[in-house]
Amino acid sequence: MATAPTELPLGRLEAFSDGVFAIAMTLLVLELGVSANAGGHLLRSILHQWPSYLAYLTSFLTIGVIWLGHSAITGALRAADGTLYRLNLLVLLLVSFLPFPTRLLAEFIGDDDPERVAAVFYGLTLLALALAMTAFVRYAAEHRRLVKEEVDAATVETALTYSPSLALYAIGIGVSLLFPTVGVVAYLVSSISRGLPARTVHRLLWRR
Amino acid sequence: MATAPTELPLGRLEAFSDGVFAIAMTLLVLELGVSANAGGHLLRSILHQWPSYLAYLTSFLTIGVIWLGHSAITGALRAADGTLYRLNLLVLLLVSFLPFPTRLLAEFIGDDDPERVAAVFYGLTLLALALAMTAFVRYAAEHRRLVKEEVDAATVETALTYSPSLALYAIGIGVSLLFPTVGVVAYLVSSISRGLPARTVHRLLWRR
Amino acid sequence: MATAPTELPLGRLEAFSDGVFAIAMTLLVLELGVSANAGGHLLRSILHQWPSYLAYLTSFLTIGVIWLGHSAITGALRAADGTLYRLNLLVLLLVSFLPFPTRLLAEFIGDDDPERVAAVFYGLTLLALALAMTAFVRYAAEHRRLVKEEVDAATVETALTYSPSLALYAIGIGVSLLFPTVGVVAYLVSSISRGLPARTVHRLLWRR
Amino acid sequence: MATAPTELPLGRLEAFSDGVFAIAMTLLVLELGVSANAGGHLLRSILHQWPSYLAYLTSFLTIGVIWLGHSAITGALRAADGTLYRLNLLVLLLVSFLPFPTRLLAEFIGDDDPERVAAVFYGLTLLALALAMTAFVRYAAEHRRLVKEEVDAATVETALTYSPSLALYAIGIGVSLLFPTVGVVAYLVSSISRGLPARTVHRLLWRR
Repeated sequence: MATAPTELPLGRLEAFSDGVFAIAMTLLVLELGVSANAGGHLLRSILHQWPSYLAYLTSFLTIGVIWLGHSAITGALRAADGTLYRLNLLVLLLVSFLPFPTRLLAEFIGDDDPERVAAVFYGLTLLALALAMTAFVRYAAEHRRLVKEEVDAATVETALTYSPSLALYAIGIGVSLLFPTVGVVAYLVSSISRGLPARTVHRLLWRR
Repeated sequence: MATAPTELPLGRLEAFSDGVFAIAMTLLVLELGVSANAGGHLLRSILHQWPSYLAYLTSFLTIGVIWLGHSAITGALRAADGTLYRLNLLVLLLVSFLPFPTRLLAEFIGDDDPERVAAVFYGLTLLALALAMTAFVRYAAEHRRLVKEEVDAATVETALTYSPSLALYAIGIGVSLLFPTVGVVAYLVSSISRGLPARTVHRLLWRR
Repeated sequence: MATAPTELPLGRLEAFSDGVFAIAMTLLVLELGVSANAGGHLLRSILHQWPSYLAYLTSFLTIGVIWLGHSAITGALRAADGTLYRLNLLVLLLVSFLPFPTRLLAEFIGDDDPERVAAVFYGLTLLALALAMTAFVRYAAEHRRLVKEEVDAATVETALTYSPSLALYAIGIGVSLLFPTVGVVAYLVSSISRGLPARTVHRLLWRR
Repeated sequence: MATAPTELPLGRLEAFSDGVFAIAMTLLVLELGVSANAGGHLLRSILHQWPSYLAYLTSFLTIGVIWLGHSAITGALRAADGTLYRLNLLVLLLVSFLPFPTRLLAEFIGDDDPERVAAVFYGLTLLALALAMTAFVRYAAEHRRLVKEEVDAATVETALTYSPSLALYAIGIGVSLLFPTVGVVAYLVSSISRGLPARTVHRLLWRR
């Protein structure tokens, strides 16, 4: 252990990540709005922008589920190392980028051609985020010395099988090319379904 | 205890929630502003937008009181579980959504018809937030294994009677249909009055 | 001690307050900008908006010094109570409101009449914040049961003499009526000078 | 030790700094956008604003690497003092200011003359940030009483040789006068290269 690679504390990685997750989720609301001349028929204007709410909800729940997974993994670790710090920065880069494609989607959905571009761009960002999160989880699970002693090998094996629904995102991107709104619903389902494996990981990792 | 459902740590749930509460409260200020051509009579322009300040104050204090209640409840717990994590995400979703109806209210109050829509929409969001918070508190209180051992059963019973002023919000929504500004004052009173039960909960839960 | 009024944990009060302080300080940057048609002479345009930087610096350092004082006081405490939680919310309300008068100041300075209004409004907000912070500090210092045992009575006495430069703010407000820019410099000096007492408080409270 | 200068707790300095780092990184996304009439050719419009992404990435990674260095240094300390608190505020002032030059850069790159001004202004901000961070690190390393006992003198000596790539920033600023875009790429390289010394510092300081 004297010659083990450098170990870094987990506390600040968690605190810093919680900050970025919380802010990215909360900034999403700044993208919501009604058109400037909505005064005369505000109710219709509010209802009319349901695609904004769909995009808002999808991004909020995606970040929420990523946070659930993040806290599940780091809760099973006893230390971090330099690579895990850097993989974490990559996850945070994509999380804090998400409000931008969310805004494009909310702005252009219903606009035919640009709506396809916006929905695909949004899906690609979600896919990149899911890939970064998978790399983060795998790296942590595969480096036994970073894992708490009371978490047994079988559990870590199982954690390795934890894989976010990359396939569902890919399908969502394909569908978006034809039916952008349906594609966004597919993203929402993908994100929510990802909440379930996270829960299973929890169950496995914290079992005593 | 070996077969108890998974327990999750409270620390990150608290840190993450504190982040969202703090950001949502602080973002509210971005909605304040004076009209672009206010230069010539800035004082009048500042005073003229008192509805913005009323909306700002109501939302700020509502989130503040929700935070008081949140820290009271989690302070009485010794662990969380997956369902509590998800109920917490629901509370945070509504907290971070609140700046949007607040902005609509600030923008359209004084505008007759849209002001009614904005005040009712705002009230419905507050009501949904109060309901989510009630669900969060009840779930925590009813799952004895999540509560700290030194918190006795009678106290938990009492915590169960803790109920945010849903009725007051409902009345505020009704009043808003006729007199929007009065309705908003009713929301403010509801939120502040909710600060008192939170205090009582504190007193009961931390009594030694 | 069994019948002592309720005690609340300090940890979450500190974490939550740190969040609001950090966000309010960081949001100030959103108010900086150059006029839309600045392209042709960007350097001049950047230099020309020095009042924005003055306002930015004053607000940033004011919040920074308030944070120094806040961490000095809570570091001397062993617990909080309901009133301290509420006084803290009042401090946070004014801290998170500060970006609004800062924006008005940055926008209207150099504009003769509105600049006077903006500078006075800004000064009044700073004064209200200093008053709220004084109330927070005094309440904490005067409730001996909230203070850590190792902090002795003489030190608490001295803490009671700690008083933010309310007078300097009042003078700054008066000066602003005649010379707004000079007034803002006075606010900046007031805020920085407040950093010194905070340091003295530290020295006294942590002396072993 | 009885007469040692005042010691301040590290915990809140870290929590508060994490907040500012996290928020500044996440606010950068608000500067991204497509031109208002982008609807007809959204894909081209998204691709066309690659300078925005370059600026975004450079600022995000710069703050990320500063955070890595910050957590490395404070992890080797056992306490802070008033001067370190103030140097930390200076670092945070520049971190939270960074979104402003980032926005100018994203807005004016490709615009010939203003682009030079924006790239130099951005580089000067990065240089000032690197200088402030160097002052923070040196002050901490040179005050032996602030360092944890298990961190030995040789390690602290080595930490003193840790110097952010000020020279690379200076070169980047010079290059920006002639080729702004190349200058920004130089900044990006400087920031990323700074990640490596931080890692070395880690290795040295946490070696057991």
